[in-house]
Amino acid sequence: MIIVMKPNANKSSVKEIIDIVENKGLQVHLSEGSEVIIIGVIGDKSKLVNSNLELLEGVDKIVPVTESYKLANKKFNAEPSIIQVGNVQIGGNKLIMIAGPCAIESEEQIYESARAVKQAGAQILRGGAYKPRTSPYSFQGLGEEGLKMMAAAKKETGLAAVCEVTSLEAVETAVKYVDMLQVGARNMQNFYLLKEVGKTNIPVMLKRGLSATIDEWLNAAEYIMSEGNSNVILCERGVRTFETSTRNTLDISAIPVIREKSHLPIIIDPSHASGRRSYIEPLSKASIAAGADGLMIEVHPNPANALSDGPQSLTPKAFTALCENLRPYGKLAGKDF
Amino acid sequence: MIIVMKPNANKSSVKEIIDIVENKGLQVHLSEGSEVIIIGVIGDKSKLVNSNLELLEGVDKIVPVTESYKLANKKFNAEPSIIQVGNVQIGGNKLIMIAGPCAIESEEQIYESARAVKQAGAQILRGGAYKPRTSPYSFQGLGEEGLKMMAAAKKETGLAAVCEVTSLEAVETAVKYVDMLQVGARNMQNFYLLKEVGKTNIPVMLKRGLSATIDEWLNAAEYIMSEGNSNVILCERGVRTFETSTRNTLDISAIPVIREKSHLPIIIDPSHASGRRSYIEPLSKASIAAGADGLMIEVHPNPANALSDGPQSLTPKAFTALCENLRPYGKLAGKDF
Amino acid sequence: MIIVMKPNANKSSVKEIIDIVENKGLQVHLSEGSEVIIIGVIGDKSKLVNSNLELLEGVDKIVPVTESYKLANKKFNAEPSIIQVGNVQIGGNKLIMIAGPCAIESEEQIYESARAVKQAGAQILRGGAYKPRTSPYSFQGLGEEGLKMMAAAKKETGLAAVCEVTSLEAVETAVKYVDMLQVGARNMQNFYLLKEVGKTNIPVMLKRGLSATIDEWLNAAEYIMSEGNSNVILCERGVRTFETSTRNTLDISAIPVIREKSHLPIIIDPSHASGRRSYIEPLSKASIAAGADGLMIEVHPNPANALSDGPQSLTPKAFTALCENLRPYGKLAGKDF
Amino acid sequence: MIIVMKPNANKSSVKEIIDIVENKGLQVHLSEGSEVIIIGVIGDKSKLVNSNLELLEGVDKIVPVTESYKLANKKFNAEPSIIQVGNVQIGGNKLIMIAGPCAIESEEQIYESARAVKQAGAQILRGGAYKPRTSPYSFQGLGEEGLKMMAAAKKETGLAAVCEVTSLEAVETAVKYVDMLQVGARNMQNFYLLKEVGKTNIPVMLKRGLSATIDEWLNAAEYIMSEGNSNVILCERGVRTFETSTRNTLDISAIPVIREKSHLPIIIDPSHASGRRSYIEPLSKASIAAGADGLMIEVHPNPANALSDGPQSLTPKAFTALCENLRPYGKLAGKDF
Repeated sequence: MIIVMKPNANKSSVKEIIDIVENKGLQVHLSEGSEVIIIGVIGDKSKLVNSNLELLEGVDKIVPVTESYKLANKKFNAEPSIIQVGNVQIGGNKLIMIAGPCAIESEEQIYESARAVKQAGAQILRGGAYKPRTSPYSFQGLGEEGLKMMAAAKKETGLAAVCEVTSLEAVETAVKYVDMLQVGARNMQNFYLLKEVGKTNIPVMLKRGLSATIDEWLNAAEYIMSEGNSNVILCERGVRTFETSTRNTLDISAIPVIREKSHLPIIIDPSHASGRRSYIEPLSKASIAAGADGLMIEVHPNPANALSDGPQSLTPKAFTALCENLRPYGKLAGKDF
Repeated sequence: MIIVMKPNANKSSVKEIIDIVENKGLQVHLSEGSEVIIIGVIGDKSKLVNSNLELLEGVDKIVPVTESYKLANKKFNAEPSIIQVGNVQIGGNKLIMIAGPCAIESEEQIYESARAVKQAGAQILRGGAYKPRTSPYSFQGLGEEGLKMMAAAKKETGLAAVCEVTSLEAVETAVKYVDMLQVGARNMQNFYLLKEVGKTNIPVMLKRGLSATIDEWLNAAEYIMSEGNSNVILCERGVRTFETSTRNTLDISAIPVIREKSHLPIIIDPSHASGRRSYIEPLSKASIAAGADGLMIEVHPNPANALSDGPQSLTPKAFTALCENLRPYGKLAGKDF
Repeated sequence: MIIVMKPNANKSSVKEIIDIVENKGLQVHLSEGSEVIIIGVIGDKSKLVNSNLELLEGVDKIVPVTESYKLANKKFNAEPSIIQVGNVQIGGNKLIMIAGPCAIESEEQIYESARAVKQAGAQILRGGAYKPRTSPYSFQGLGEEGLKMMAAAKKETGLAAVCEVTSLEAVETAVKYVDMLQVGARNMQNFYLLKEVGKTNIPVMLKRGLSATIDEWLNAAEYIMSEGNSNVILCERGVRTFETSTRNTLDISAIPVIREKSHLPIIIDPSHASGRRSYIEPLSKASIAAGADGLMIEVHPNPANALSDGPQSLTPKAFTALCENLRPYGKLAGKDF
Repeated sequence: MIIVMKPNANKSSVKEIIDIVENKGLQVHLSEGSEVIIIGVIGDKSKLVNSNLELLEGVDKIVPVTESYKLANKKFNAEPSIIQVGNVQIGGNKLIMIAGPCAIESEEQIYESARAVKQAGAQILRGGAYKPRTSPYSFQGLGEEGLKMMAAAKKETGLAAVCEVTSLEAVETAVKYVDMLQVGARNMQNFYLLKEVGKTNIPVMLKRGLSATIDEWLNAAEYIMSEGNSNVILCERGVRTFETSTRNTLDISAIPVIREKSHLPIIIDPSHASGRRSYIEPLSKASIAAGADGLMIEVHPNPANALSDGPQSLTPKAFTALCENLRPYGKLAGKDF
């Protein structure tokens, strides 16, 4: 941590800060510049968390030099994490395809989806039972009933399964039926929920918040991991910008940035990022080429009748064609599927 | 709702859409332009919620013409809502000052804060017992123990009290001690939590999400109201932009926009919006001048030792001076305090 | 300037950097932390501008501690600048009202506008002769012919006048007719134009770019000032965000931030910021309350027939009423008009 | 164009609008809904450009249904444009690599760069002679002297060449030496400059503005094309967001969006988008996979001594390796190089 003093800061202000820092058992290094004085703090900065040094007389700003997340940080765990989800490994040398409808609507619908995505090559079935919808008047999901349908479809096909959770109650129910929990973008900083999924022993796919920086996202992962569950998979799904041609703006750079900062796997969701079916294929290819560990794609047996997010869902036929077109890109990037 | 067809859409596509719309009991008006055909839909568009018209052959885009929120909408409730919080009315002709520490830290701290803000003229005491913190290693709040301290301080001073809630458990506990619940910016689209506070019978202050549009914010209010609790107060606390001089960018225009779209009261939080004490006074004056119903300000007896958000907290002395400086602006805007 | 090394940086990398810095005649202060080494650079950092230290082996990041603008910086010029525009002073104890049509359309229109805004209390007439329009098919302005009309209206009314310039040719023409040049938001980083207006001897109003940070804006002012023209007035007109209820998001915090960082005056343009007439009054009041030196408001004798930006223009009658309503706010803020 | 009336609009307001529209020679279609009345306008909406219908009594909003650009619009020119730049075709079945230093610094530097990028497989040499720099105290470019050096390097190697222009003077000089002009991001809405490059007869590469929507970008292209120069190449270089891990956020979705809206070719600049050398390779692969027509990459013989943008420049050796790694992606995407 570096403390930058104001140009007009006086000696007694500098001394006060040095005293505070040293009293916490840390060391200081003083640099007196031509314009400003800079105080470098050496040691475990967490001891200063509540010292509010910004408020002291003469202080201009505090510049952190190390990240606040540890368990998710590549610096302390250089090897890429490989996470076991059912019989599938995320983060290894296979490209992971997670596919299925936005919401579970009926036994027939989830069965049909499961069979279709399995046949096309997907390894994990997705489907929402607890839907976070912008309007209270939209379809909210079937709850446990939906999860039972999904578990049956999972059993028949041998796919692993993932479902979004939005409350403690949903967590407690979902762990009985699925292989991975999903924390949605709107709950990325619902710290209560992060802790609850951190107390389970199944993997968690953590979507990036609509306007979360990559550092905030990794801090959210840290919340889950600090509860003892280190099986976190990151999922980029587009961030909010001024552009309106796409529903969100897919931050493709998040892939190399995460690779540099963290050991956790990263999945891309081009369906939510773009909001339009016709953009899914180019964005999927781009994601694989940039080094993603997998993709999450919405597939619905009959998108025009979907109760949620129809416009971005692919038909089983279109998904099969997509997988065919993506295979050579996976192979080239060293990730077969 | 308006359906804009693609330039090359053929007659059978148009007919298909008309059939679907009419089968739902709605009417269509067809406009054949020189370049495109436009289909106007007349009637209750909620019947089409799951029809996914965007997916149909030949459709270019769907343009909504009415808002998806009803209970929060000024069109259906033209009179400004006045909401009773303890012995205070928000939304009337008084300027409401909500003040206190970011987090409740000790009996002494909350008592001292309560007395100080009461004396300066505040009507509502704030203080967090359940803190949503970006890093899991920061102070997380005292929980019910903190709420008990707050209730005692409230009783002594006669102030009303507000506390943020982050889970069902927190809601169930907080309703026993405070007069208003707060849903924080990071939980604005935690729809599960919105429903839970909607089931209580005490007012809810709903902070705007970091990157929530005003329409999404009003839809979040609608979630609470649709559960039967119409006592919602909106709180603008800055949105996320590219600018880094301030922690967030206070969207001052939200005040007149909300006045035009909704009947709900609106409070401004300049402490979180700016993140710096020196900007609180000018932003508070601006908020009052733009027509806000009140302000929420962080006050701590000893900001330099605060366990949370010290840099943006005012001392009791500074808060008293602030209130003095704001009074003439309140008076000018027709909101004494 | 602070150089933060990577955790695994070795001694020879550190030595290499120290050698480079010292060879430029600067001093270093070394802080060896538990996790990282930090190198503080003392002296005139401009000597290192082209050294690209970020590229050296072992360097993690470079943290600047001083601003790159000097002439616009309050640190080197603590007194607020008062700038003479015709017979008007911007930055003193008067609130400055700049008003008039978006574009000069005809002799009659500019005369009528000038008389009306003069009578309502404005001191400076605005009107565009060179219009930067998003579409090439929109009205582009009358050029010198328009400026002649404006000069006549100015002469009759005794108002000062301001006009946007978009090219060297426009600068050379405009200086003959107006008292202040305006650089528009879209040209804020047209550095060629900044230099040209910097070579004139008349004041320049510099609008903030749509997505410019405050530091970039002050660096743009520095461009003008470094050519010898220190008469720069800043104008905030809203920044681009995700919100769509207003055309742009007025960054009201820019007022206190500029007050802290610079000695230059700041004007607010609520017409362009909001894009809607009904929001102009609350935003004007907020701007005055936050400490603005003046306002720029679009006024058109007949907004419904305006060739540019009609929806945000006020009628002379509405502008007169606005001025009446703003006067008490000006008085309260210590800025009569 | 669709005119949405307010819920309480009365009949005479509706009639007034119909009269105005019909008087301009256009037709209306009226849809009376349960809540609102909608007026569809049929015919050439440009006749209404200055009618400011938004201002009329009872109007809620105006919804455009067709784009304001024509020449750049795929609807009116379905075939992809292939643009000849020197002896190179952009937009065909070859991947175009544009490479070279940010700024031309010396004869030796540009020769060395040209030879290196040629050998690695690039077809076009880049190099700036007129640099738009944020601070007036940074290196500003060598001007015509630099262009002469570039022309010599171009002649020796047989490469085509591109150079940014920032003023009319620069345009007039540059056309004598290079095969393509570049309009930089900061000048994307410098409409004066757009018109000037539109009057030349050589291709123009138009970079997207930092916060320009794709529609604004295509309108800027329209400015150039409406002057008679239809040889426009678009270049995406990252947009401004809240994320700070990368200098800008590369909007990879711009590739499929442009493919859908326009016939113009699109090039990606991963160097400026990310600001870091280590992200260039993954972003380049992603761009090719998403369908880009080419890449623009900064290469400098000695990045650590570059006078501009060193941290994002590749060494010739690194660029050669990059090209090797990109070739299979080009081949897979149907774009050899």
